[in-house]
Amino acid sequence: MTERAPATSRVEMTELVLPGDTNAHGTIFGGKVMQWIDIAASVAAMRHSGGLVVTASIDALQFLTPIQVGEVAVLQAQVNFAGRTSMEVGVRVEAEDVRTGARRYTTKAYLTFVAVDAVGKPRPIPPLILATDEDRRRHGDAQARRAHRLALRDRTR
Amino acid sequence: MTERAPATSRVEMTELVLPGDTNAHGTIFGGKVMQWIDIAASVAAMRHSGGLVVTASIDALQFLTPIQVGEVAVLQAQVNFAGRTSMEVGVRVEAEDVRTGARRYTTKAYLTFVAVDAVGKPRPIPPLILATDEDRRRHGDAQARRAHRLALRDRTR
Amino acid sequence: MTERAPATSRVEMTELVLPGDTNAHGTIFGGKVMQWIDIAASVAAMRHSGGLVVTASIDALQFLTPIQVGEVAVLQAQVNFAGRTSMEVGVRVEAEDVRTGARRYTTKAYLTFVAVDAVGKPRPIPPLILATDEDRRRHGDAQARRAHRLALRDRTR
Amino acid sequence: MTERAPATSRVEMTELVLPGDTNAHGTIFGGKVMQWIDIAASVAAMRHSGGLVVTASIDALQFLTPIQVGEVAVLQAQVNFAGRTSMEVGVRVEAEDVRTGARRYTTKAYLTFVAVDAVGKPRPIPPLILATDEDRRRHGDAQARRAHRLALRDRTR
Amino acid sequence: MTERAPATSRVEMTELVLPGDTNAHGTIFGGKVMQWIDIAASVAAMRHSGGLVVTASIDALQFLTPIQVGEVAVLQAQVNFAGRTSMEVGVRVEAEDVRTGARRYTTKAYLTFVAVDAVGKPRPIPPLILATDEDRRRHGDAQARRAHRLALRDRTR
Amino acid sequence: MTERAPATSRVEMTELVLPGDTNAHGTIFGGKVMQWIDIAASVAAMRHSGGLVVTASIDALQFLTPIQVGEVAVLQAQVNFAGRTSMEVGVRVEAEDVRTGARRYTTKAYLTFVAVDAVGKPRPIPPLILATDEDRRRHGDAQARRAHRLALRDRTR
Repeated sequence: MTERAPATSRVEMTELVLPGDTNAHGTIFGGKVMQWIDIAASVAAMRHSGGLVVTASIDALQFLTPIQVGEVAVLQAQVNFAGRTSMEVGVRVEAEDVRTGARRYTTKAYLTFVAVDAVGKPRPIPPLILATDEDRRRHGDAQARRAHRLALRDRTR
Repeated sequence: MTERAPATSRVEMTELVLPGDTNAHGTIFGGKVMQWIDIAASVAAMRHSGGLVVTASIDALQFLTPIQVGEVAVLQAQVNFAGRTSMEVGVRVEAEDVRTGARRYTTKAYLTFVAVDAVGKPRPIPPLILATDEDRRRHGDAQARRAHRLALRDRTR
Repeated sequence: MTERAPATSRVEMTELVLPGDTNAHGTIFGGKVMQWIDIAASVAAMRHSGGLVVTASIDALQFLTPIQVGEVAVLQAQVNFAGRTSMEVGVRVEAEDVRTGARRYTTKAYLTFVAVDAVGKPRPIPPLILATDEDRRRHGDAQARRAHRLALRDRTR
Repeated sequence: MTERAPATSRVEMTELVLPGDTNAHGTIFGGKVMQWIDIAASVAAMRHSGGLVVTASIDALQFLTPIQVGEVAVLQAQVNFAGRTSMEVGVRVEAEDVRTGARRYTTKAYLTFVAVDAVGKPRPIPPLILATDEDRRRHGDAQARRAHRLALRDRTR
Repeated sequence: MTERAPATSRVEMTELVLPGDTNAHGTIFGGKVMQWIDIAASVAAMRHSGGLVVTASIDALQFLTPIQVGEVAVLQAQVNFAGRTSMEVGVRVEAEDVRTGARRYTTKAYLTFVAVDAVGKPRPIPPLILATDEDRRRHGDAQARRAHRLALRDRTR
Repeated sequence: MTERAPATSRVEMTELVLPGDTNAHGTIFGGKVMQWIDIAASVAAMRHSGGLVVTASIDALQFLTPIQVGEVAVLQAQVNFAGRTSMEVGVRVEAEDVRTGARRYTTKAYLTFVAVDAVGKPRPIPPLILATDEDRRRHGDAQARRAHRLALRDRTR
């Protein structure tokens, strides 16, 4: 079980917003973006851990601006933090207007996955190598979110 | 714009987990649950605010246990907190085994919506009446999550 | 195998009509409503019978008014009649305009299900307790539909 | 508005049952068959009436045997009866096992459609020419179902 | 393993173009037509070969004119050529305007399938009887495409 | 209208093969791969041409090995050739086994798109800069395919 840098499990996913993906006011339906985010993040977690994973939580998913029908959605996912059997994956979603090539930052999300074996039991995962300053900044932020998440879990239902 | 109690916008949604909703290990695909959660929560927010809404964020979505193919998913959504133009909606997902009638608590989520008018501009929404002790407890927890969320937003990217 | 009242297997299902659910004239596609009706009714039949069921027939499904994109569909399903291995389930679909909260009665349907075991053979189901006057009225109507259905089946192909 | 024989609006539709179309016991999900039936019948009604139609009712839909994943579904739809603005369409569904070529009769349904104009108002449709004995038999049966349907509508809710 | 004429495996498939099938400019999304083409062609190949098949290639798929939402798509598929374990199937797609009954030729495609057994190994298929002049013309064209395809495969990557 | 190198419009798309994407023998359904290919290729063509495009043809789509449920599909699309109003886009699909990280080359396809304006009329597109030896090799192969395609179009129906 060799350790891995975030770059080795990074995921890029490109989608085109079609009318069947929209809500009643012509922008992308939130549930569709969530579905794409879950797939992009799952693949990053599967790559890092070398096997099956289950989604444990989504900690902070913010929709900054809507994506219009006909625009392109570009998702980038990477592992920010790896514990013993669980990982945090960050996903960044950009909307691209193909007429100008301009991209807007529209959504970000942090998901936690647990690596599981064939019968669904948690299994150990490789450590994460922090190769760049950016890797270290993301790792620090992920640890802060993890502490908040655990604190919150104790306090509320 | 008359104030409304959480009970008047409460949503119940029942779904059956079909093979087309599953991931490669036979339990429900996370992105599908998220899609159902977004619909249930949107309807509660649309009912409270009397019009269009857009998903602004998901703050804490935890998958406690997986739902198996052939099980029934029961989602309950209600408005916990209403600000000037935005609302927090809590969603609880239970899995029901129809052979025994037993229900397991499997997922919970807190989503924030902004009420918008026809051109997408935020519009004011009715205040929330806290009618029961349960309403008050949920409202207090929602305020705590809101404070954490705002604090986190300032600290991390 | 204890007898059950209709209230114990009642189903409520809430859906939001999205553009991907519509036909070429902007109202909900009939086949989509049928899909939702089949799921709501199946869950009621699975709850009453405590296991797998298969759809045997749909006897009377009337679309009274169309549902518009952006409206909410609320489905209510309940067991009206229980024979030895089969049940009739009634489904009522209402359309809700979230701006006013007004609901219109749009569709009703009566479906018959057969309870089956793991190899697909019919299996006995619990009797239905008629607990209220409404339960008794529905049971009587279901018996009339059953007689018509059997008569019709003999006469036509 | 020239009259038309059932043969001129007849529809044949072929589908392959994929795993994403099944229920938890490996046969086709009832709601999926209903969706295909609604499309096949709509096209027959659109062809006869030369324009838009809305589904008004389904009178008798019987599932005689289930269709297995990997089998082919063949749907045939034709107009049985034409009134002033509404039509009855009959749909027959067969399941084909491609290994042997054998076909089983699995489902039949009778749907009523109303022809509408661009604003949704009922519009007159061409008369139906009864060209063959089979056309006449179907037309007679459709009239019997129509009488039952009207009688039932008055008696039950 | 008796030989078969193209007519015995011919497939007709009728679909209605719904808003959920369209791209951002209101005509059918290319990927949806391809999905229908793959299903229609697969069924023809399954019928000819009496079992499972896998898509090996698509040689020439031309979209001559777009299909509009609300139009009917009629697909016809038939086996043009049968080798030892593989077949070429031709698919013709027409768009029908139900108001006038006029049909336009919109898409054609040639797909090659390999017949496989339960473990995915190629299996022998029946010879094709060329019963009509049209069958012979199609068979000749299929042979020309096959030669081009093999030549191209050697020359390019 | 500045000329562009293939690298500026290159598309990477990552997908996870779910049970709802499979055929009856547990590998990905051909029509689903085609849908993904059409989206990836369309985005490359939209980026190069800065606007709407329509799929004109698919010239050679070969399925070399099937993709299993639970595997990751990685699609790469890039513009190989640009004419006055049309472009050829090549798509390469690899299947990745996340347990080992091994990737297999499974499908390749060449699609031609026409750039269109808001009313569907062909519009001029930027020239393609051939920046690398690989770009030049692909451009040469695309020209050979184009010649074959035009020759074939004249000879067969």
